[in-house]
This record gives sequence, C-alpha cells and structure tokens, in this order.
Amino acid sequence: MEAAEIESMVESMARRARAASLALATASREEKDRTLRVLSELLEKSAPRLLRENRKDLDAGKAAGLNASLLDRLALSEKRIAAMAAGVLQIAELDDPVGKVLETNERPNGLIIRKVRVPMGVIGIIFESRPNVTIDCAALCLKSGNSCILRGGKEAFHTNTALAALITEALKQGALPPDSAQLIPTTDRYALHCLLRMDACLQCIIPRGGESLIRFVVENSHVPVIKHYKGVCNIYVDKAADLEMAREIVVNAKCQRPAVCNAVENLLVHRDAAEWFLPEIARSLAAEGVELRLDKEAAAIVKTAGDIPFVPATDEDWTTEYLEPILAVKVVASADAAIDDINTFGSGHSDGIVTADKEAADRFLAGVDSAAVYWNASTRFTDGFEFGMGAEIGISTDKLHARGPMGLNELCSYKFVITGQGTIRS
Amino acid sequence: MEAAEIESMVESMARRARAASLALATASREEKDRTLRVLSELLEKSAPRLLRENRKDLDAGKAAGLNASLLDRLALSEKRIAAMAAGVLQIAELDDPVGKVLETNERPNGLIIRKVRVPMGVIGIIFESRPNVTIDCAALCLKSGNSCILRGGKEAFHTNTALAALITEALKQGALPPDSAQLIPTTDRYALHCLLRMDACLQCIIPRGGESLIRFVVENSHVPVIKHYKGVCNIYVDKAADLEMAREIVVNAKCQRPAVCNAVENLLVHRDAAEWFLPEIARSLAAEGVELRLDKEAAAIVKTAGDIPFVPATDEDWTTEYLEPILAVKVVASADAAIDDINTFGSGHSDGIVTADKEAADRFLAGVDSAAVYWNASTRFTDGFEFGMGAEIGISTDKLHARGPMGLNELCSYKFVITGQGTIRS
Repeated sequence: MEAAEIESMVESMARRARAASLALATASREEKDRTLRVLSELLEKSAPRLLRENRKDLDAGKAAGLNASLLDRLALSEKRIAAMAAGVLQIAELDDPVGKVLETNERPNGLIIRKVRVPMGVIGIIFESRPNVTIDCAALCLKSGNSCILRGGKEAFHTNTALAALITEALKQGALPPDSAQLIPTTDRYALHCLLRMDACLQCIIPRGGESLIRFVVENSHVPVIKHYKGVCNIYVDKAADLEMAREIVVNAKCQRPAVCNAVENLLVHRDAAEWFLPEIARSLAAEGVELRLDKEAAAIVKTAGDIPFVPATDEDWTTEYLEPILAVKVVASADAAIDDINTFGSGHSDGIVTADKEAADRFLAGVDSAAVYWNASTRFTDGFEFGMGAEIGISTDKLHARGPMGLNELCSYKFVITGQGTIRS
Repeated sequence: MEAAEIESMVESMARRARAASLALATASREEKDRTLRVLSELLEKSAPRLLRENRKDLDAGKAAGLNASLLDRLALSEKRIAAMAAGVLQIAELDDPVGKVLETNERPNGLIIRKVRVPMGVIGIIFESRPNVTIDCAALCLKSGNSCILRGGKEAFHTNTALAALITEALKQGALPPDSAQLIPTTDRYALHCLLRMDACLQCIIPRGGESLIRFVVENSHVPVIKHYKGVCNIYVDKAADLEMAREIVVNAKCQRPAVCNAVENLLVHRDAAEWFLPEIARSLAAEGVELRLDKEAAAIVKTAGDIPFVPATDEDWTTEYLEPILAVKVVASADAAIDDINTFGSGHSDGIVTADKEAADRFLAGVDSAAVYWNASTRFTDGFEFGMGAEIGISTDKLHARGPMGLNELCSYKFVITGQGTIRS
C-alpha cells in the first residue's frame, strides 16, 4: 500500500470507529453481553480455522528465525482458544461500568450536578505477538462501551485477521455497529504512525509490548497514551523484618513467575539485617536456580557464608527488568536510603517493605513513589484479578487517569450531567 | 542563551522539581497552608514592586502594538494584586486532597488494598499573558503537593519574574523546597520544546491559552497533556421547551459573559418550536446587542417577524468560538438531529437542552458526548467554583484523567497501598 492509501484508510477507520462509539456508548448491558456470548461461541466453533491461520504465522515465524519463547507466545492451541472463549464469557459476567453515578452534588442554586461514568470513545490498542490480546482487548473495550482499533504485531497477522473476522461477525449477530472493533489490515509501520495522529477521533492509546515499541508510541502520539515501560520491582528487607517472612516473600516475588512485570528484580537489605538475612536468602534463591548479582557489601557477607554462587552486580543491574530468575541485591543503611534508591532506580511499578516496625512501613509506603507499595506481602499481587477488578487491560505506571492495574472502570471517563429548573447564572 | 545551555537548564530545573516533589508529597497540610499564607502576605506587601515590574511589560507591550484587550489581561493593579492575595488565602482554606483513602478492599487472602490519593509529582503549566495564572497555578499545585514548572508568555516576563521571586521566598519562609515552583527564566520557544521532552521528570502538562499554543504542546509533548482547545457550546431548544425559560437561558448563556469558554455560541431550535421561538429570542438578543448569524430556515422565519437584524451563517460559524456577542442559529428536525449536530461540530465542552419532555432530555444527556451536558440550565455553570470544587486550574475536554472543570482533586493521582501478613501468591 502507498503512504497516501494507508493514511486515508486509517483515517476512515478512525472516523467509523468514532461514529460506532457514539452508538455503543448508549448500548444496553444486554446488547453488549449478548454480543460477547456470541463471540465466545464463535471462538469455540472456529478452532480448526484459527489453528490453520495460526499455523501460517508459526511457519513464517520459524522461517524468520523467531526464538522459542516468541513462537510460544504466538502459538494457539485448542486449550488456548478455549481459554480465550472462557475469558470472553467472564467479561460478560462483570458489572457494566457505564452509567454509574459517581457523585451527586446539589448546589445552593438548585442545580443538581451528577458525575456519571461514560465510555472514553475510541481506544487504540497497540500490541505485539500474543494473539489472545486481540480478543481480550476487544472484549474489554466492548463491555466498557468503547470502540477499539487494534494494531497487532506482524508475526501474528494471519491469526489476528481470523480473530478480528470473528469479532466483526459477533458484532453483526449482536446488532451492534461492526465498526466498534477494527483490526488495522496492514503491518506497515506507517499505519501506526497515522493512527497516533488521529486525535480528532481517538481518545486513548494503550500500547502493550516491549519498551522500544512503547517509546515509539509516546514520542509520536498526539493521542493520550496510558502505559508502563517496565517493572523493575524492589523489595526492601528492614532491620525489623521477620526473617522467615522476608525469605518467603522474596522467594515468592522472584520465583513464582519470573517472566512477569510484577516479579521482583532488586532486593535491598538493611545493613543491620544483612549478616543474618543475606546468607539465608542467598541459599534459598540459589536452591531455586536464581542467579544472584551482589553489590560489594552483600558479596562480602555472602562469601563468608560458604559456597553460594553469585556474580558482582554492575550499575546497569539496578535498572534492568530481567524477567528471568536473576536477582540484584544491595545493602542499604536505612529505610530512607531504600526509599531514595527505589525512587531513583525503580520503575514506579510495585515495591515492598518487609518489617515489623509500623513507623518504618509508613515512611516507606508514603515515600516510595510507585503505583503499588506493599507492606509484608509479595509484589506479585499487582494484577487486575488479584485486586478484585475482575479483568485487566494492562498496568499503568503513569499518574494521569489510571495508575496500577486497569480494569473496566479505568477504560471509562465521566461526564457531568446537570439538571436545572431554568437555572441561569447571576 | 544557546540551545545546549537552554536544554541543560530545563533539564536541571526538571530534575530539581522532581526531587522537590518527593519531599512535597509528604508535607503536612500545615506546612503547605503556612507557606500559602506567607505568599499571600508577600503579595500584599510587594504591590509597589509588582506594579513597577508590570509597568515594564505594559510599556513594552504598547511599544510592540499589543491590542487593548491583551494589554488589559496583562495589567496588574492594586485591586488585582489584592484579589490574587485573597485567592491564595482561599486555597489555603480548602481541604487537603492528599492522603484521602478513596477505596478499601479486603481480599479473601487477607491483603488489605487501599487506593490512596497522592500528588501527581511535577506539573508543567504553559500559559500566555495573564500574570494571575502564575500565582493561581503555583498555589493550586502547592496545595495539592505537586511541584510545578511555570512557563509564561513573553509579554508578562518581568511581572512573572517578580511573582516567581515571591513564590520562592514564600517556600523558603515556609521551609518547603524552593524548587517546588520554578519559572522558566527565558521565553525562548526552545525552552518549551525541551520541557515537553522531560517525561522522565514531569507527570503532566497543562497548557492554558489559545488553540495554536495548545496544538503546539499536544504535537510536541512526550509528557501527558490535559487540555481543552476551545468551547463551542450549544443550546438546543426542543419542541417541548418552555418558551420563557428557553429565552432566559439562551440570553444568559450568551450575554452574561460572552468572552468565556462556557458561553453559548450556537443555538439549535426544533422546527416545531422555531416559528414561535425564533422571533422572540432574536428580538431579545438583538436588544442585548448580539449579532445573529442564521441558517436559511431560521433566516426565513426571522425575516417574517419584522425588522430584526441578522446575517446569514456560513459553514465556519458552527465550529467557531466567538468569545463575543455573536450567536449562530439553525433549525433542526429533531432532538436526534441536534445530538448529531453537536457531536459533529461541537467541541465537547458544555451543551444543553431546554425541554419539558424527560425522554427527549434523557436522550440528549446520554447522547451528547461532552464534558458537561445541561437540562434546563445555562451552560455558564461549567466552572470549578460553580461545581463546588472551591478552585479551578482549568477545564478539560479530554476524556483521560479529568473531564470538565479541574480542581485540587484532579491535580492528584492515586497509589495502591497494600498490607499483608507475609502474604505470598500461590
């Protein structure tokens, strides 16, 4: 496609998405849920076709030399398709976020001002190779009354095209505007560039993927973006920590699922706790196959404790999201030093303190400038489901609009609905 | 200043603002209010010096040929300085938005998840020539625990520099970090460009001014922006409207203060109401000196009603923010046609319906995609003070974060504070 052709196609998609969003904004819960149930059924019924299309992407991916972990992300299976279909049904079960009166304020002049939750309008979702994102995001946008424009990675193009066709079919069968969810039918980067300039029609862009993709979106978008670049999560073990509790929390936060953004990457230990805690935790983590990267002080202590393997930490370790069984460890002089360290090198995602000292905990929870701050708990809970939101479209480390896990409510805006009796301003 | 010098200066300001914001985030209400009271006193005491500095700007403005309305915006007076000082005291009286627990959620695993309101961090305020914005915005940011970087227009440079010196002095006397509020000490456009790229330190940019300034900010910022371009407000008079109520509302919304963003610019009248309503409202508005711009159908009706002056409307009229005693008027076939028209040509700011028909009102209030939607009231109420927020830093027609008038709460974000008892994820 030529540039001008891409531009006019993306503009047309955005305009149609905006028109659809105005209808979708006042659709009833029943209409939206019915459409989601149709989509779930279509997914189940279409498994053979989806697997065939996915096979094309997998073959192309192998030929292009994608690594095993990328191919795994890309792969569909009967089980994964069933999980997608079940996920859509779960979204249908959730309360409708739209129309809720958030505040009512009766003014002295008799005006009644209601703050009412409404959809945002049109949301652009930019993602990479996991095809389930296509279905998840379309379903969450639909449930929250938003149109969406989906832009997936080129590796999953055939799979996404097949999934998008099912979404369109579900919208038709559910008698909702088919333009409510549209996949950009080209993986040309210029289409993304054009989409990011459609601020006349789009209200929000949510990029999901690696840091460089998200950076590109932030630097080129005229549409507001909600994002997180990465999760470099820290746990600080205070001098007043319960040793066994700290050990369990750190092992859980590192090992329970290392490849996710809320897994811990850095451990900070108070100097007064280091001598008894560090050898203990180092042994536990080594037993779990975790590679330890230690600062000088931590290394000196671990070395005296016998034959525990580690490597020296470099400056880069404190800002690196490993997403692997690796943990960087340093010794700090105080809770305040830990707070400074986390505010300087962390990513503002999820950070915790382990301590029995309420005052130290309060300082930490107030002083650490992160989306989620934990006292005596694993960082692994930063997640829409664990927070009781029932769903998650992503996690934000921004401070505008939504911070932390984002569910259906966070896909919405509000409007002020004001009722008078011929009320005028004097 | 050379470009590299400007760049490093802005970067240094942003880093210092970020460091100050971390201290300010945990400052007590008493510390913040004390500082605001000092600032208010300093303003009162410094009137002669402020007037001298303002005189330099006014003289330069006159020499540069600024028009009378711009010079009026720029001018300080004893009275305006006293009003600024009083405004700062009023902000000190408002509740502290920071630290409020917005939600508490106890999970089945024993985790207690609190959603707590916290400052955003560092806010950039971009404005033009009204010097009171410098003080208003600095005071609102301080009260909400945010550092701010102020970038004013070149016309008010001497005045703003003098005002910023008072803010710095108040911060020092109040024992809060002096870097909490900083004015960019150059009006070189490159400094603004640099500021918009400091997304590592700034959380939010609020531009206040004309559409072209705001457009520049949106197109160049890597920092999230909250804005409104303009207010093209509409009132729709339904066939079931009370004639006298509609007349009063339209006259109020147009004439009470035409130069503000919530004044009405377009009037839509249902065809069935046009014959009795249009001559009536045209006469009332003409008597108030309002220029009427009528579509063909409205013109034909008004023409038959005798000697009421008007001009024909052009296509541009429906999207123009006059900010003057001018009103564009058209006849529509139905409430739905009015809704479509407003969603197509309006600015998503404030739009109202006048009707006695609840069903038509409900359709309108749900269907019009604007920050504030009114039933039987003037659009002039869209304002932080009228909404009971006690303050206003601006109005947003965005849907992310804040929509409509923004007060202290809207200058804040939230964080999740999670307490466990050694809780780990299974």
